[in-house]
Amino acid sequence: MNIGIIGGGAIGLLLSGYLAEEHDITVYVRRAEQKVLIDLHGIRVTNKFERQHVQCKLIDQIKDQDCVFVCVKQFQLLEILPYVSSLSNKVSLIFLQNGMSHIEKITNLSQPMSIGITEHGAEKINDYTVKHTGVGVIKLASYNGISNRELQQLLSVFEQHDFPMVYRDNWSILLKEKLVLNAVINPLTALFQVKNSQVIQNEYIKILAKKLCEEACFVLSLNEVKQWSEVQRVAKATGENTSSMFKDIKEGRPTEIEAISGYLLKQCSNSKIPYTAFVYHSIKALEKKKGILHR
Amino acid sequence: MNIGIIGGGAIGLLLSGYLAEEHDITVYVRRAEQKVLIDLHGIRVTNKFERQHVQCKLIDQIKDQDCVFVCVKQFQLLEILPYVSSLSNKVSLIFLQNGMSHIEKITNLSQPMSIGITEHGAEKINDYTVKHTGVGVIKLASYNGISNRELQQLLSVFEQHDFPMVYRDNWSILLKEKLVLNAVINPLTALFQVKNSQVIQNEYIKILAKKLCEEACFVLSLNEVKQWSEVQRVAKATGENTSSMFKDIKEGRPTEIEAISGYLLKQCSNSKIPYTAFVYHSIKALEKKKGILHR
Repeated sequence: MNIGIIGGGAIGLLLSGYLAEEHDITVYVRRAEQKVLIDLHGIRVTNKFERQHVQCKLIDQIKDQDCVFVCVKQFQLLEILPYVSSLSNKVSLIFLQNGMSHIEKITNLSQPMSIGITEHGAEKINDYTVKHTGVGVIKLASYNGISNRELQQLLSVFEQHDFPMVYRDNWSILLKEKLVLNAVINPLTALFQVKNSQVIQNEYIKILAKKLCEEACFVLSLNEVKQWSEVQRVAKATGENTSSMFKDIKEGRPTEIEAISGYLLKQCSNSKIPYTAFVYHSIKALEKKKGILHR
Repeated sequence: MNIGIIGGGAIGLLLSGYLAEEHDITVYVRRAEQKVLIDLHGIRVTNKFERQHVQCKLIDQIKDQDCVFVCVKQFQLLEILPYVSSLSNKVSLIFLQNGMSHIEKITNLSQPMSIGITEHGAEKINDYTVKHTGVGVIKLASYNGISNRELQQLLSVFEQHDFPMVYRDNWSILLKEKLVLNAVINPLTALFQVKNSQVIQNEYIKILAKKLCEEACFVLSLNEVKQWSEVQRVAKATGENTSSMFKDIKEGRPTEIEAISGYLLKQCSNSKIPYTAFVYHSIKALEKKKGILHR
């Protein structure tokens, strides 16, 4: 199948590397420098592929594919939407973003759309190399213009034993459950500069984590007990990982705090979710301290 | 006058250095190593005194003086109280601690007692050297067994143009107003690892600072508007200072978080002062991360 992948970040590179085993991949990036390097080296997934051949184009060269994965961060989505909307109505789009607020941005697109989340740990080493730090799955649900049956058929094409994609029947719950994980683990690891395991191993961070989990569940109408046990499971399973937000702060890049805690705060007053408000302002404070500007 | 000073930390050394200009000072310390160094070098206040001669004794050698300043941290107070209580009832005691909870520990002492706070910035460089990083005043109020008039007389003895001590008529308000400053500036500077000025210059830290100030004023029944303007004034005036809590965390020492935010939390439920609860657990988390143990 011809697959387009928009975004040359950790998830975009990881997806490209694995899917290139069985498909024709075109990676769309923004920077000419990254295009040159991928043309030269292919894509490298450490411990897995020394070199995977893919096509690489600049985003303004985008053209129809059977299917296009959108792997840019939530705050970069507005930039690439004009290119996505130029595609034919037959191109199946799959959006892999954190948070919830990308939904309102894509809702008017006319292509068949699916929404997904990734549970992989992935760390971008350089413009063509990604380290697969935690093997997980990608979970997908149909959003608009694609039936559950059609999505399941599409997924059967992606069936790869070493890179599972699984079907879920409710995109909203999928995003909400991921949002809880992100709202707890990401800001705390970035604020205290610790690996994921410390969210449950440092008893004081754990107190804050439980509060953040309760607040997110309150906003999203999810079951607290179930989600808290899920937070603990994931913090343990990905214990040695450095969260994306901690990495973003360390490396002076903008974080996804607006799409995560910021989204929750937009749903209700700060005083109802004070712990979420605290970490939101904390991460903004760290961005400011580091001189990080959002594009 | 014969003055005893208990504690060889930043404030103890600073006070000893200045008061030694006009008085006979005996500094009481816990560690023999520090005693040896002070015997050898005297006390050095950078930019002010190269060498001030004082007597230095171990705390178990304590004997009557005209007046004794107690300059240990709040969490070290219980250790030195047996020595203090062995002094004659004529020895005037002056307690310089942060927080409020030392009051209940000293309430049964039979000596005349005054309570004070210091607004100096002071950084201990080594066991006999202190850097005077911010010139302020010491404010004192009578607590028990000493009349306002007697305290004012005592203060007139300390009159030094370069090290002012001023009289206040209400020890409780004195401690409360200092507690607000400490509850805002200390945990935030330690959490974000910034100098005092950032509490008002980083707009996101400032949002948290205002919330912490409001919560502290709520617990202590102080005027929010007045205290918030005071927090901003002090953060600006001591802008280049590293707060004591930030220093404690950096250098792996126990902080005074229990005496500050911990005290406020004991006064009311966590849910009424969630920002205070957040910084309390945060500082405990940082202590835990750094492997800091309280003695």
